[in-house]
Amino acid sequence: MDTSSPLFLVLDLTGVFAFALNGALTAIRVARLDIVGVLTLGMFTALGGGMVRDILLGALPPATFRDWRYLAVAATGSLVAFAFGRGLDRISNAIVILDAAGLSLFAVSGALKGMDFDVGVAQATILGAITAVGGGTMRDVLIREVPAVLTSGLYAIPALVGAFIAAGGAQLGTPALPTALVAAGTCFAIRMLGVVLGLDAPGPPRTRRGA
Amino acid sequence: MDTSSPLFLVLDLTGVFAFALNGALTAIRVARLDIVGVLTLGMFTALGGGMVRDILLGALPPATFRDWRYLAVAATGSLVAFAFGRGLDRISNAIVILDAAGLSLFAVSGALKGMDFDVGVAQATILGAITAVGGGTMRDVLIREVPAVLTSGLYAIPALVGAFIAAGGAQLGTPALPTALVAAGTCFAIRMLGVVLGLDAPGPPRTRRGA
Amino acid sequence: MDTSSPLFLVLDLTGVFAFALNGALTAIRVARLDIVGVLTLGMFTALGGGMVRDILLGALPPATFRDWRYLAVAATGSLVAFAFGRGLDRISNAIVILDAAGLSLFAVSGALKGMDFDVGVAQATILGAITAVGGGTMRDVLIREVPAVLTSGLYAIPALVGAFIAAGGAQLGTPALPTALVAAGTCFAIRMLGVVLGLDAPGPPRTRRGA
Repeated sequence: MDTSSPLFLVLDLTGVFAFALNGALTAIRVARLDIVGVLTLGMFTALGGGMVRDILLGALPPATFRDWRYLAVAATGSLVAFAFGRGLDRISNAIVILDAAGLSLFAVSGALKGMDFDVGVAQATILGAITAVGGGTMRDVLIREVPAVLTSGLYAIPALVGAFIAAGGAQLGTPALPTALVAAGTCFAIRMLGVVLGLDAPGPPRTRRGA
Repeated sequence: MDTSSPLFLVLDLTGVFAFALNGALTAIRVARLDIVGVLTLGMFTALGGGMVRDILLGALPPATFRDWRYLAVAATGSLVAFAFGRGLDRISNAIVILDAAGLSLFAVSGALKGMDFDVGVAQATILGAITAVGGGTMRDVLIREVPAVLTSGLYAIPALVGAFIAAGGAQLGTPALPTALVAAGTCFAIRMLGVVLGLDAPGPPRTRRGA
Repeated sequence: MDTSSPLFLVLDLTGVFAFALNGALTAIRVARLDIVGVLTLGMFTALGGGMVRDILLGALPPATFRDWRYLAVAATGSLVAFAFGRGLDRISNAIVILDAAGLSLFAVSGALKGMDFDVGVAQATILGAITAVGGGTMRDVLIREVPAVLTSGLYAIPALVGAFIAAGGAQLGTPALPTALVAAGTCFAIRMLGVVLGLDAPGPPRTRRGA
């Protein structure tokens, strides 16, 4: 799929908006930062994954710097969260749902951009997952949390599944819009199921001797 | 402005030197590291922002690896701080002032390099700010502090103001040296004013319900 | 040396395998993560240094994304550690030795790739050291440890020595295989000597006034 297509832009910018809200709300709730801290964490979370994706693809300067809409959407999302975040009764729920939404959208857009650069389905799947978890991992490192991708079993897995569906569909030439919706929806559903049921991936096998 | 001009090099290398001193002094005071730790933190702080700038612009390998003076200046600054840092009565003041100086110089050099790569004034402003806060953010992540850019309201703002003046001047074709001095001076003045007066940017609006 | 040569690939992939085991064992021991966390930390540790090297050289997409063997070796190493790690009596020793092995192999492969891109001996030496310490530094940041490169005096030094021997040999045209073995062996020996003897690099000079 051409990454200048409207579908790609809508996926990518919606992901940016979701992660900007998420990062800014995290800044308000966890770290109680002022407006600059909220904006900064919102924009890092929103733009970090896509920047890493574009750096790894050698698509430089990254889209963030070539298309003003990325900066505008990320700033708007952060400011909206700053203005209304304190009034949210269920700010924790909002953070989790927005994170899952951003994860799903970036898994798909990252995988599609990888396919557009002809890196192969396996690599595009990994690239989609890196795009998806990148912004949130930067967010967590900056506020000194252990990143969700390490502690939450069902965080990387849904991103890999969504990215694989998107990359595989692009390889096979399935229709772009339905494929993207199925890929993002599957990622979102697995992630939210994991959150709701408190599911975790299996730990290391036990042995009689322990470690 | 041509980024191979003497003015650009002086701005950039002076910023490298200020941040090398700053990073190395931070290593001595906060983390009590040995000579290798001091050198490493000094060089990361000094060279981190410029590397991120050059990566984002696709100007690879970064200037750090193409021009031996960057490595030499960063190592010299770190070693000077290592040799004399313990004798400093006012090491905390020195750290703060050097940080403000590096911030100001990199905001300007980052914005000018962005304009040289034709990314537009808004993008060059953001790029200048990323260059300015990049090294210090790496420094803080490595020693497990929450980065100043998140906690200190008047850290990103002066960098953005300085970068904007530099990028806008380059766009309008104002004389290079006075513009760079005004841009860096404004950034430095706002930053130091914030430190001296303990100013912070506004927090999120309060609501009756709280969060 | 041509970086598509079998010698380069063997060095680089063995380094990937050692760091994948190391990162995955660290995840099991220090952070007690589940299988996804173990795989993620293993792959970050294994592939992080090489990705940073390729980004700095502008060799994009990085080898990780162009050659499926990198992903396969990193995943295999992480899964092997996951399956057998708990049974290891001396998991701490294994972590330290694998870290020294990865450090040595990446110092050499990073320096050789730098020479292949004609960045000069000093720059190739630094690049080798960054490649060597990069993955472990990411590992430590992600699990919120202060990186070994800052706290352990004899961590960056052996990497620099090994990288310098490899880069200098490539410059002088010494035979590739013996040079690589001497370079990696020297790095490994210095690192392990430092660990065994508890050696540290010198701290800042004391003054009568203190700091």
